[in-house]
Amino acid sequence: MTNYTTAIGEALAALRRKKPIVHNITNYVTAHECANVLLAIGGSPIMASHPGEVQEITTLSQSLVLNIGTIEEGTATSMLLAGKQANTLQIPIVIDPVGAGATLLRRRVATHLPSQLEVAIIRGNASEIMALYEISYTAGGVDATDESLPITQAATTIAKKYNSVVAVTGAVDIITDGTIVVELHNGVDLLPMLTGTGCMTTAIVGAFASVVSPMTAAIAGITTMSVAGEIAYSKLQHGEWIGSFGRYLHDAIGLMTPEMLVEKARIVVVKE
Amino acid sequence: MTNYTTAIGEALAALRRKKPIVHNITNYVTAHECANVLLAIGGSPIMASHPGEVQEITTLSQSLVLNIGTIEEGTATSMLLAGKQANTLQIPIVIDPVGAGATLLRRRVATHLPSQLEVAIIRGNASEIMALYEISYTAGGVDATDESLPITQAATTIAKKYNSVVAVTGAVDIITDGTIVVELHNGVDLLPMLTGTGCMTTAIVGAFASVVSPMTAAIAGITTMSVAGEIAYSKLQHGEWIGSFGRYLHDAIGLMTPEMLVEKARIVVVKE
Amino acid sequence: MTNYTTAIGEALAALRRKKPIVHNITNYVTAHECANVLLAIGGSPIMASHPGEVQEITTLSQSLVLNIGTIEEGTATSMLLAGKQANTLQIPIVIDPVGAGATLLRRRVATHLPSQLEVAIIRGNASEIMALYEISYTAGGVDATDESLPITQAATTIAKKYNSVVAVTGAVDIITDGTIVVELHNGVDLLPMLTGTGCMTTAIVGAFASVVSPMTAAIAGITTMSVAGEIAYSKLQHGEWIGSFGRYLHDAIGLMTPEMLVEKARIVVVKE
Repeated sequence: MTNYTTAIGEALAALRRKKPIVHNITNYVTAHECANVLLAIGGSPIMASHPGEVQEITTLSQSLVLNIGTIEEGTATSMLLAGKQANTLQIPIVIDPVGAGATLLRRRVATHLPSQLEVAIIRGNASEIMALYEISYTAGGVDATDESLPITQAATTIAKKYNSVVAVTGAVDIITDGTIVVELHNGVDLLPMLTGTGCMTTAIVGAFASVVSPMTAAIAGITTMSVAGEIAYSKLQHGEWIGSFGRYLHDAIGLMTPEMLVEKARIVVVKE
Repeated sequence: MTNYTTAIGEALAALRRKKPIVHNITNYVTAHECANVLLAIGGSPIMASHPGEVQEITTLSQSLVLNIGTIEEGTATSMLLAGKQANTLQIPIVIDPVGAGATLLRRRVATHLPSQLEVAIIRGNASEIMALYEISYTAGGVDATDESLPITQAATTIAKKYNSVVAVTGAVDIITDGTIVVELHNGVDLLPMLTGTGCMTTAIVGAFASVVSPMTAAIAGITTMSVAGEIAYSKLQHGEWIGSFGRYLHDAIGLMTPEMLVEKARIVVVKE
Repeated sequence: MTNYTTAIGEALAALRRKKPIVHNITNYVTAHECANVLLAIGGSPIMASHPGEVQEITTLSQSLVLNIGTIEEGTATSMLLAGKQANTLQIPIVIDPVGAGATLLRRRVATHLPSQLEVAIIRGNASEIMALYEISYTAGGVDATDESLPITQAATTIAKKYNSVVAVTGAVDIITDGTIVVELHNGVDLLPMLTGTGCMTTAIVGAFASVVSPMTAAIAGITTMSVAGEIAYSKLQHGEWIGSFGRYLHDAIGLMTPEMLVEKARIVVVKE
């Protein structure tokens, strides 16, 4: 049994040594913030989406992050081209199925990618992961939702189907490879009030995926963001709120050490 | 006669209860800031521009914001598709005609949208609203500008023509539905020195449009940004300037209460 | 011989008086930050990339900045259209060949632009300028790199070839017009840890290019960013890092005076 608490500390040390290049095909809303947190955690971000160059960019990289937040003409093609190249070179792929349930286009892309590519990690919130489950296991109608289905069961099913680690972020985060189930209990309520914290978490998970296994990478990346959120929240003074929180969060990611991560992590292995 | 000061306090309380989803088809320069202020004021932002999904996104939303700041291939089509859907579902539309006078493309889009759609509110600066007036009432030549025309008269004319509330932001803001004219006297000179404060104001107006009438929404949204600007400015210490102002502004929008808005609002009804 | 230290102080005063409109055809990752620093230094930014309007936007402007950071379909066309118009109107062009060596697409665009346009200034890091050198003077293969070639020699060669000032930013910055070589010794290690400081530097250089010669503009723009970085770094308290640095940097650019720039500048003329 892996000691994940120890493992994520070692993962952060390894990430800082390796300075992995992380290729992001991502949305324009949070691209800047994702680049900034990747630099802060010790990675080297490249944002590039043009079908004519994504394969070359992936080839230069140690990790590939595919985020469908503002999908545009040609983006799905770029994601497949980059993804195939990543698979060929055994570069890990992390997918963020932003708003997967919202539109037919997103449902198509969010299920097409993991069915065509070997994906290391899928990171979404409960409604996004539930959407992937419904699309894959029903006729696709939103009405078909079985609301009583626990999210852990949906995540486990998706993880088995795509042979990926599935990470569901929320008040308690759930990470599963289809067999092992881990819960993460760090974080603060203010994180979802800042645009892009989901995307940023996925980007950081992507950086970790270049140095450790998908399970450890998902746990390390999400715990990093959650612990940084706790540190940022603790710094807020009277009259400070979400603008200051964003600045302190960025500070905290840059100043995070393996020791802090190990000390503050609240990881519970629910099922081995 | 509406007491707008009371009304905007109630509007903020209603907005915080409803947490409206606001669909933004907007520019890539300020999309991140618009998403952040929408979250801070109590809304739920979605940025989506692909013609293949905008109708579905609008259907999920309680408000639609169309901003032509960095118009791209397909954006005008997306705006019309989303706008028609919004009209069908009686979801309010708010337009920001960024740089309306600068190019033929922008003049076309900025006048085509309100002539094809029922638009609740058009929010621009004086030169943008004057550009709309000139395009609509002259042969279209920029030379045709009657510089002596007061902006209030141009705004009133445009409001009547398109059956929209027109909000002109500046040192003093002018809001009109074509008959009533209201002036807003809040704000600080530093606001235009921060990129995207116009776009952010329009986004906030969009959130308010989901809970109150277009007149009240325009007054509430603009006053929220202006009062937040005053609070942010008052916090600046020696050696702090526009970077700190942006952070304090974001803090102030998140901490704004109906009581603060009512207490600080400087609304003058010029014509009933 | 120009006294560059005196000249950059005068340049900043002139920039603040002129408030030049700077047209940016740039990437979506750092567009917001570039707009913010342009406002802070005293310019007026316009971001516009659509081939259908870039010529008109350039016509309204006093400077044109072309940044290939996230090149998209149509962007290369827009850059050429805007650039030809800028040449016709004698508006200075500044190019940022982001990631020039990374892909065939970028190599093509980065060399096509200065060969088709009269470019005032090319601003890149050492690897980008070296990539331009290799593409121009070898069969184009990356293997052809002569790693022993000093960057100053590559920059000088490129400057002569394109009749442009070449500015290479790094720990020590090198500015050359092909004959004169100037070194700049300001700056802090933290600057490259913030996404977009290269793009922001190019944008500021673009603003300066509207009021002074290319050599002075490159020196003034880079020194402004480096001195602002030194000021921002000096403000960091215990527990503050890259998020706070970004805010202080933005503050410092807005508060920069000609006197501060002259006092802190460390400019060494290496070759006259």
